[in-house]
Order: sequence, then C-alpha cells, then structure tokens
Amino acid sequence: MDQPGSTPERLRRQIEFVIEVDQLKNVFRRSPLLAADRRENDAEHSWHLALMALVLAEYADEPVDPFKVLAMVVLHDLVEIYAGDTFLYDAAAAAGQQDRERAAADKLFAILPDDQRDRFRAVWDEFEERVSAEARFAKAMDRLQPLLLNYGNRGGTWRTPGVTEADVLARKSVIGESSAELWAYAETLIRTGAEHGWVPRS
Amino acid sequence: MDQPGSTPERLRRQIEFVIEVDQLKNVFRRSPLLAADRRENDAEHSWHLALMALVLAEYADEPVDPFKVLAMVVLHDLVEIYAGDTFLYDAAAAAGQQDRERAAADKLFAILPDDQRDRFRAVWDEFEERVSAEARFAKAMDRLQPLLLNYGNRGGTWRTPGVTEADVLARKSVIGESSAELWAYAETLIRTGAEHGWVPRS
Repeated sequence: MDQPGSTPERLRRQIEFVIEVDQLKNVFRRSPLLAADRRENDAEHSWHLALMALVLAEYADEPVDPFKVLAMVVLHDLVEIYAGDTFLYDAAAAAGQQDRERAAADKLFAILPDDQRDRFRAVWDEFEERVSAEARFAKAMDRLQPLLLNYGNRGGTWRTPGVTEADVLARKSVIGESSAELWAYAETLIRTGAEHGWVPRS
Repeated sequence: MDQPGSTPERLRRQIEFVIEVDQLKNVFRRSPLLAADRRENDAEHSWHLALMALVLAEYADEPVDPFKVLAMVVLHDLVEIYAGDTFLYDAAAAAGQQDRERAAADKLFAILPDDQRDRFRAVWDEFEERVSAEARFAKAMDRLQPLLLNYGNRGGTWRTPGVTEADVLARKSVIGESSAELWAYAETLIRTGAEHGWVPRS
C-alpha cells in the first residue's frame, strides 16, 4: 500500500507491518470450524486463543502475566504468512519447520522499527521455546483450541489417515506442562472421542 | 457441544462460552480484505485490532494499560454474534443498535460463571461508553483498521452510494479522541483517497 509522502518514517514502517499481516487471514489451517462448514484461518485461530486466555487464565498452574500471554497468542502464528501452516500430525512437514519459521520471522519482523522488531521477535522466541510460564500457557491454549474444534466436529482432523488416539494424546500432553486441570479435561475429551470412534484406538 | 459428564460446572460453562463464540468467525463485515478477495469477519477483525494495539500503543495521547486495551478489542464485537454487524454508514440500522447489542451482551456473557460474566460485561460497557483512555484507544484502532483496508483497496466501503468524504471524516474523527498523530495520519489518508476519487467529495 502506498502511504502518503508526509508519513513519518517510524509510523510508515508500523503501518506497513499492519498491512502485511493482513495475509494471516489467508493462511488456512486443517481444523474445521464449529460455526461454519469451512477450515479455520490463522487470524481467527489467534483471536480464539486470545479469548480463551482471558477465560481460562485461572487454570495456569504457575502465575502468568496476562498481557504477555495475550501478546504471545496474537503474534504466535505470524511467521506462517511466509512459512505456511505445518499440520501437527505431519512428521515430514515438521522437518525443516523450525528453519522455515525462523527465516520468516527474520523477514517479517524486519518491517518494524528496530526496537519493535527486537521486542516482537523476543516474544515469539519465548513462545516457541516454552521457557516461561506465559509461553507454556499460551502453548496450552494453542493445543486445546483445535482439540475443542475436533471434538465438537466429532473427529475433524483426528480422522486423518494414520492418526491414532495415542498420537493425539502425545501431541496434546503439552497442555499438562501448564495446567493439570486443563490437561485432565483434554485427556477426557480425547478418550471420549476414541470411545465414540472419532479417532482410532492405537 | 456435549461435554463429558465429569466436567466441573465452572469449567463446563467456560468451555461452553469458548465454543459459542466460534460463531464470531461467521459474522461478516462490509470491509474487503487486502490479502484476499472477500469480506472480513469479526474474529479476523478483532485479531487485527489486537495486533495494531501492540504496534501502535505509543501513539495514545494518554497512558493506557496495554492488557486492558487487548482485552477490550478481543471482546468488543462478541455481541454481534446475536446482534449482527451494523454498517458504520447505515443510519437506519444504527437506530436500535444499542438496545440490540445490550440484549446480546446479556445473553452471551450469561453463559460464563457469574464473576466472569460481570467482569467481561464491565470491559465491554467501558469500551462502548468510551469512558477511559483504554476505551478511547481501542475505539481508535476499531476506526483506523477498516480505514486502512478501504484505502488499500482504493475505496472499499467508501464507494457505498451516498457516502461522502465528509461522512468518512466525521465518523473517523473519533480517532482524534485518543491520538492526535494517528488522527492526522487518518485524515491524510481520507483526503488523499478523495483526491484519487475513491470517495466522492461532499
């Protein structure tokens, strides 16, 4: 987008970033929505995590800074604008994912003024590395949300050929790193889904 | 969504709320995206405001609590799940909008446990009434974001029959209640758009 020539340089870069990330609305995930018959995109997904973080913060086993959690979930998938969405149960795609996403972060955050580039990158790195209570809680939201969509859709991506109950339990156990209660709930959903035949027993 | 019978009552209501709000992804606005040839939905829009609040917070003329701003923009459009989106330039639809949205808030937030119902409602009321620096900044983001989409689309909803440059300036001047610098920028975009013929001169 061509901005007016009078725009101060700092603001120009910030608005360019705001415009660039509009593309997140066009990165589609595997998960089907509950409210409509289509797949979810990353912008909707990120919003849903923010909403969940507001509702479910009390279940974090360690105290979390709620602002930091929200900032993380808002930013966590931006790299997929350039790196694409990597399906949780696709081991082949997972190879090289980290390198692809880091290169994407380098490129995308560089649009921002340097101080914000560094701050946003630090938030994203922290999320990826799960080195703080906030990162563990944000990641728990990121794993719980599609689980709710799959359960509500009586299978969803659990029905992908080759995926079993044990795979789902293994991938989702990350929730337990942040919240014993939410993990107990998630485990019950997965086992109930398997009982209903929405994901094959291992 | 039927939740397992073992789910504690408080968590059951919280998850029911998380599921109910999936519908925000199916409430479509008038604004066209930049990244794809379709209209934007409320969930994507709310995420975009959160991202903008992170990038542009420094332009608020009064100090703002950044967590409160994020909570506001994440929640601000939830009432539209039941009340629908009201187009900014449709005066007829605006009549009754407040009553419709209050009834929607009563219904939606009542899904939550009572303490969260009251807290979320207070955040939404504060946003609607623009009685705090956070509410004024959140509202500025809400007005600036579609303006960027319209400008980037060389008109967008500015091309709605009957809408003039003066209408756009009047509706967007709310940005100036929070940030003189962002309002100066927005005003330049609107005047530049009118020069290009993307919105008719009054």
